[in-house]
Amino acid sequence: MNTTENNTSTAQVHYFLVPSTMSSPMEHQEEIISTTTVQAATNEGFDYSKLIDQFGSEPVQQDLIERFEKLTGKKAHPFLKRGIFFSHRDLHKLLDHYENGKMFYLYTGRGPSSDSMHLGHLVPFMFTKYLQDAFQVPLVIQLTDDEKHLMQELDFQQVRNMMIENVKDIIACGFDMRKTFIFSNFDYMGYLYKTVVQIEKCVTTSQVKGVFGFNDSDNIGKMSFPAIQAAPSFYTSFPHIFSVQQDAFQNLESTMKENNGKNMDSIMCLIPCAIDQDPYFRLTRDVAPKLGFPKPVLVHGKFLPSLQGAKTKMASSDKNSAIFLTDSNAVIASKVAGSFSGGGASKELHEKFGANLKVDVPFKLLEFFLEDDQQLEQVREEYSKGIMLTSQIKKLAFEVVSKLVKEHQERRARITEEELKEFMSVRKLDF
Amino acid sequence: MNTTENNTSTAQVHYFLVPSTMSSPMEHQEEIISTTTVQAATNEGFDYSKLIDQFGSEPVQQDLIERFEKLTGKKAHPFLKRGIFFSHRDLHKLLDHYENGKMFYLYTGRGPSSDSMHLGHLVPFMFTKYLQDAFQVPLVIQLTDDEKHLMQELDFQQVRNMMIENVKDIIACGFDMRKTFIFSNFDYMGYLYKTVVQIEKCVTTSQVKGVFGFNDSDNIGKMSFPAIQAAPSFYTSFPHIFSVQQDAFQNLESTMKENNGKNMDSIMCLIPCAIDQDPYFRLTRDVAPKLGFPKPVLVHGKFLPSLQGAKTKMASSDKNSAIFLTDSNAVIASKVAGSFSGGGASKELHEKFGANLKVDVPFKLLEFFLEDDQQLEQVREEYSKGIMLTSQIKKLAFEVVSKLVKEHQERRARITEEELKEFMSVRKLDF
Repeated sequence: MNTTENNTSTAQVHYFLVPSTMSSPMEHQEEIISTTTVQAATNEGFDYSKLIDQFGSEPVQQDLIERFEKLTGKKAHPFLKRGIFFSHRDLHKLLDHYENGKMFYLYTGRGPSSDSMHLGHLVPFMFTKYLQDAFQVPLVIQLTDDEKHLMQELDFQQVRNMMIENVKDIIACGFDMRKTFIFSNFDYMGYLYKTVVQIEKCVTTSQVKGVFGFNDSDNIGKMSFPAIQAAPSFYTSFPHIFSVQQDAFQNLESTMKENNGKNMDSIMCLIPCAIDQDPYFRLTRDVAPKLGFPKPVLVHGKFLPSLQGAKTKMASSDKNSAIFLTDSNAVIASKVAGSFSGGGASKELHEKFGANLKVDVPFKLLEFFLEDDQQLEQVREEYSKGIMLTSQIKKLAFEVVSKLVKEHQERRARITEEELKEFMSVRKLDF
Repeated sequence: MNTTENNTSTAQVHYFLVPSTMSSPMEHQEEIISTTTVQAATNEGFDYSKLIDQFGSEPVQQDLIERFEKLTGKKAHPFLKRGIFFSHRDLHKLLDHYENGKMFYLYTGRGPSSDSMHLGHLVPFMFTKYLQDAFQVPLVIQLTDDEKHLMQELDFQQVRNMMIENVKDIIACGFDMRKTFIFSNFDYMGYLYKTVVQIEKCVTTSQVKGVFGFNDSDNIGKMSFPAIQAAPSFYTSFPHIFSVQQDAFQNLESTMKENNGKNMDSIMCLIPCAIDQDPYFRLTRDVAPKLGFPKPVLVHGKFLPSLQGAKTKMASSDKNSAIFLTDSNAVIASKVAGSFSGGGASKELHEKFGANLKVDVPFKLLEFFLEDDQQLEQVREEYSKGIMLTSQIKKLAFEVVSKLVKEHQERRARITEEELKEFMSVRKLDF
């Protein structure tokens, strides 16, 4: 039981405003992390350890990383070792469950928002792939095409096309087809709906207003949408995967009565996501015990910084902020070359004071995507001391990123229509 | 275009409070008609002509009844001739559409609320059956099992069982299986969902609060439910019936653009319902032009009075108020015998002043269910003059009602599991 966890029933969970201690009163700016806005106080990005305090989550620490390695017999992903997936809720409980030979599955998702995904979108999927490989568990991926309609003026075909393009990018991350189910809410609602209604029943309009900042002028679909994003956290949403019987809810209700509302033997769910999605799942964790489900376990990722600096994240809405998975080598080269640098203003200053790694975007790209730990440490040391030059860092970042994008594009080009259909078809999984 | 129609965007549509002019200031009571409460000022029942003014609907008049008979070549149903279906929205427009050889379908529904339906529940279905026979059109019937979960503490199996029992009662009304599709929202949401989202997008939380009296402590499922009851008013909800293509919404969107948001050639929808369901469909009629659909056409029925008097309607929640379709002859006899009478307090007074038909429940039962027009008029005359006695009226009402219930029970007993399945299966209809 995580006693420090903030409860979504209280109003203060909405919009975390973290006053910056770095800036003078005149320059004072606040950190904003919500499901719609992400804005740090400075180019150093977010004070993530402060976020952990504010959100009431737990830091990913060395003992947890060692448990991952011990239990899976595999090296921990760089995202874990480098603190990119930095925060969690109940991960130790999930590992206990796994250690006891019990079942869990992975759930992540995406709101289709542009034809092409960018590097920032890739981060949770890369980590999810590692988790699937390490634990050999089923994975469900929700595409919130319905939410796009509720939020924006787009027609069905536009959203459908974006979604299919996004699904190809997701598949290209290398998920195991036998263990992965990707679904559009429009396609899959027939299966999801019973679980959605159970959740809706437990969530009041004022809770949703408090957590997401909605008001009475928002449409009624936005109000109930959080239940739709919550539903895949509960295994009853996937009867074809978990062999839930017709009367699963009936059994669930009896089980709950027998266990004072607790059904601890249930299938657990682990959700890797960027930290800004946490409000949805805090709400879900509030609801879970009322319905007799275990609370979904979360592991939170940091934001990949905008090319213009870590004050904001890479975003599709600002084309210059992001490296897209469709970008050519030339475009990537130019974007990395123009990205925000922490290097010295002149060669002399750089050699004297070294680079400020906290704000250096090319270095942050390496922290995310350079696989070789030793090489990263060498770069960190030499660049911070001014031995390596900004141009060298940018060249290396370009090489790493362009290789990643090129390999992604190659895998994506090989995806067949049949594979796409198979990933998205309602079927049994193999685990 | 009905210019007098009230618009749901304005707040005053919620809860129609009709001050009674009949009662003294001390006895002053208000009429309440909402989707949750129905309460007249006196035992004479509602002032329905005043309701028409308040709701901004139109009265069903002689010219309309004659048009029904002319167009269908069939005698108008007693419910039309006797003013039981007394109010409408756009029925003339629907008949124009039909006269021009264009398509419409019928939509009605039911919230499963008890194992057995009562006579009051039967009224809209009896009228709907007449409409289906007269026009030979498809009919869709929505069972709002999801709403029951959102509103009450019931488990899935309880609601499922009630629903199946209700469906049998509905089928027993004699609907044409080849033209009738009965669906549970839980079963059918996969098909309904795209239309639901389109509607949700057009309805704000404050509109729903205004129309249904919800507030922030209501759960988020209640807030969005009106879109689910609205959806079957639009033909895109039934791709298997109306051969809506995959890209129906796409076409709809282009059609709307071409026609300045108007798509008058679309398939129309006629909704027979009790007057208390009007708020849902006023909301739907507001939304329709925004989505390029024709407004659903409505025809409103009066309430079948409670056995205790027309101040309230027959209700499952008050077992003594209603004659259930499972009641035995003996129970019906006792219920009718004990029902509220407008007859004189003594034989002498009765013969002198006659009966007050406005409050007499047995006479109201005859108005609803005695098929023979001539006999009804004779009873009206003789009973009002005190020639016929209360005991005779009660006997006649018992005979009529018990025959109706007995025949219903016989038809219901003959329904097979296969028929039930067929009515509820997603399939093409024959029309």
